[in-house]
Amino acid sequence: MAEFDLTEHPHRRYNPLTGEWLLVSPHRSRRPWQGQQEATDEAPRPAHDPTCYLCPGNVRANGEVNPDYTGTFVFDNDFAALLPDTPVGEVNIGGLLRAEAESGVGRVICFSPRHDLTLPEMSPEAIRGVVDVWTQQFRELGARPDINYVQIFENKGQVMGCSNPHPHGQIWAQRTVPGEPAQETRQQQAYFQQHGRSLLADYLALELEQQQRVVLANAHWVTVVPYWAVWPFETLVLPRRHVQDLTQLTDEEKDALAEMVRQLTIRYDNLFQTSFPYSAGLHQRPTDGQQHAAWHLHLHFYPPLLRSATVRKFMVGYELLGNAQRDITPEAAAQRLRELPDVHYKAARH
Amino acid sequence: MAEFDLTEHPHRRYNPLTGEWLLVSPHRSRRPWQGQQEATDEAPRPAHDPTCYLCPGNVRANGEVNPDYTGTFVFDNDFAALLPDTPVGEVNIGGLLRAEAESGVGRVICFSPRHDLTLPEMSPEAIRGVVDVWTQQFRELGARPDINYVQIFENKGQVMGCSNPHPHGQIWAQRTVPGEPAQETRQQQAYFQQHGRSLLADYLALELEQQQRVVLANAHWVTVVPYWAVWPFETLVLPRRHVQDLTQLTDEEKDALAEMVRQLTIRYDNLFQTSFPYSAGLHQRPTDGQQHAAWHLHLHFYPPLLRSATVRKFMVGYELLGNAQRDITPEAAAQRLRELPDVHYKAARH
Ligand SMILES: O=P(O)(O)O[C@H]1O[C@H](CO)[C@@H](O)[C@H](O)[C@H]1O
Ligand SMILES: O=P(O)(O)O[C@H]1O[C@H](CO)[C@@H](O)[C@H](O)[C@H]1O
Repeated sequence: MAEFDLTEHPHRRYNPLTGEWLLVSPHRSRRPWQGQQEATDEAPRPAHDPTCYLCPGNVRANGEVNPDYTGTFVFDNDFAALLPDTPVGEVNIGGLLRAEAESGVGRVICFSPRHDLTLPEMSPEAIRGVVDVWTQQFRELGARPDINYVQIFENKGQVMGCSNPHPHGQIWAQRTVPGEPAQETRQQQAYFQQHGRSLLADYLALELEQQQRVVLANAHWVTVVPYWAVWPFETLVLPRRHVQDLTQLTDEEKDALAEMVRQLTIRYDNLFQTSFPYSAGLHQRPTDGQQHAAWHLHLHFYPPLLRSATVRKFMVGYELLGNAQRDITPEAAAQRLRELPDVHYKAARH
Repeated sequence: MAEFDLTEHPHRRYNPLTGEWLLVSPHRSRRPWQGQQEATDEAPRPAHDPTCYLCPGNVRANGEVNPDYTGTFVFDNDFAALLPDTPVGEVNIGGLLRAEAESGVGRVICFSPRHDLTLPEMSPEAIRGVVDVWTQQFRELGARPDINYVQIFENKGQVMGCSNPHPHGQIWAQRTVPGEPAQETRQQQAYFQQHGRSLLADYLALELEQQQRVVLANAHWVTVVPYWAVWPFETLVLPRRHVQDLTQLTDEEKDALAEMVRQLTIRYDNLFQTSFPYSAGLHQRPTDGQQHAAWHLHLHFYPPLLRSATVRKFMVGYELLGNAQRDITPEAAAQRLRELPDVHYKAARH
């Protein structure tokens, strides 16, 4: 029998950040596809759209008028899933019907006044402005006694449920720590207690040694397709320095983060020559007043496209009922991303 | 301040089957939608499609010819994610880069020779045929020493990644127990040890007492929108009797299961007058040779549609990075499903 080979044979991989396993089926990328084709978001957009509720000067659903902002703009989500003034209460019937009130805040962050841009098309300075808003929002919301976790994220593209193409992200900040960061807290703490070092710092050192999953690296940040990536071109953006949250970053590190986000999203757009959809977000320490020495700030990018601008990976049947599963190896995905040009395909056309 | 009210206030609910929490935002269903509209699968299909690799008598990708089957038809998936002959092996670098070989079997189950049918349009007898294949496949695969878990499921509709509209389901059976059933095993075992009863039997008793989340009930099966449902119209189908797997069901119970699947999928199609997409599947005891007294067989239905045939719920940004989240309450969803007619909307048109 042949020797076990990660590039060829079905296998499971372990995600030390969550403690879960993933099924990898490297041989499976050539199956026929008669299923759904995604629409691409290629229609050119005007710089200002009078019907967009995120553009400067326009009226929102609640009657408020957006200011004539020139950089970023943050406001409370008019349809927030979390509300600050939820009455306290709980249900517990036999440990099987259990509910408890949840409170929090939902905000929208417009990245730019320009309706027609996306992160990879913005200047490094403009993206640095976004990093600064993330930092300031984390500081402000995290300081509130009623907020113990601040989730900053972006849904990009219709296929990722983005309800408006104006470049924007969201913040959902709340009383309890949501499931994903709670799991990462437990895993990072256990590792830190055992080894006295950050799990992600040790992981980063291994990736820099092996290089095969490294997509981009600058003086302060490294982007890898993690060993345990679930989405076809999923990436993990890591600071070289072990910090718990954005407020600890130096100015230089923030510039380098903006540049990393720009470089990564340019590669993404270039992969299938399309505005690359994804959900992305920051994971930072809970703001529950506890020490979180083990926490290592990072960004996740979860993009759904698999083969082309119109064929995505579906997280359905087996993935929902059984286990996370992927078809191409993380190493193959990293290599493809790494080899892409660093100039945006639209800019290169001119 | 008002009193805490599950129908109005954001809250979290606990899923005792997985040990995870869900965020519920009952007030959030009225937000504006400018995002992706799903295509509906309404094009009429011929009873036999010469280009379909699942229809009787047609040639598959590997050159094999499908028999002229008249009921169900099972074959090994030509593009299986799991293969029986994977060489054994593993990787472990510092506990952070960990992988191990996985082996298993992938099969396809055609539900009917008719290319133009779906479960809700099939006769009770024909659906009973599907239940019998599930049972026989579970028995056969579960008996193999190299198979410790058998996942039977169906992806229905393009939006759920179904790559061919011919009515069919799949089986992925493998050496290790995947994440979801492993979690359910732990939770059910812990409950059984503590209470000496099945978690889902106790849960079912509470639901039958409260009635508000019950969608359908017959002599042997009950369908509820579970208290912790994540997808808008998610349901859980439970046998009244505590059994671990399909092979323990009586003939009468199997007939009643077929009838339950028919009644439920008719309601689903009637909800938005469309062929209702979903991923659905059976959860049964692992076939690892151990006693699984705590295990209580059940079916999950995970349908994505939220507001209409074209507007779905997206599991994106916050859901991927933070926590599962839903907008309408399980009680409201159950009420809507319960009130639908029991005759399929297409049949009612004639
Ligand atoms: O085998 P199919 O139907 O082509 O594939 C479908 O179901 C699989 C199992 O849930 C998924 O991994 C695929 O992403 C999905 O497209
Ligand atoms: O708030 P939006 O952009 O309208 O909504 C989008 O992101 C939310 C947070 O991930 C999801 O709950 C919604 O399903 C999705 O459509």
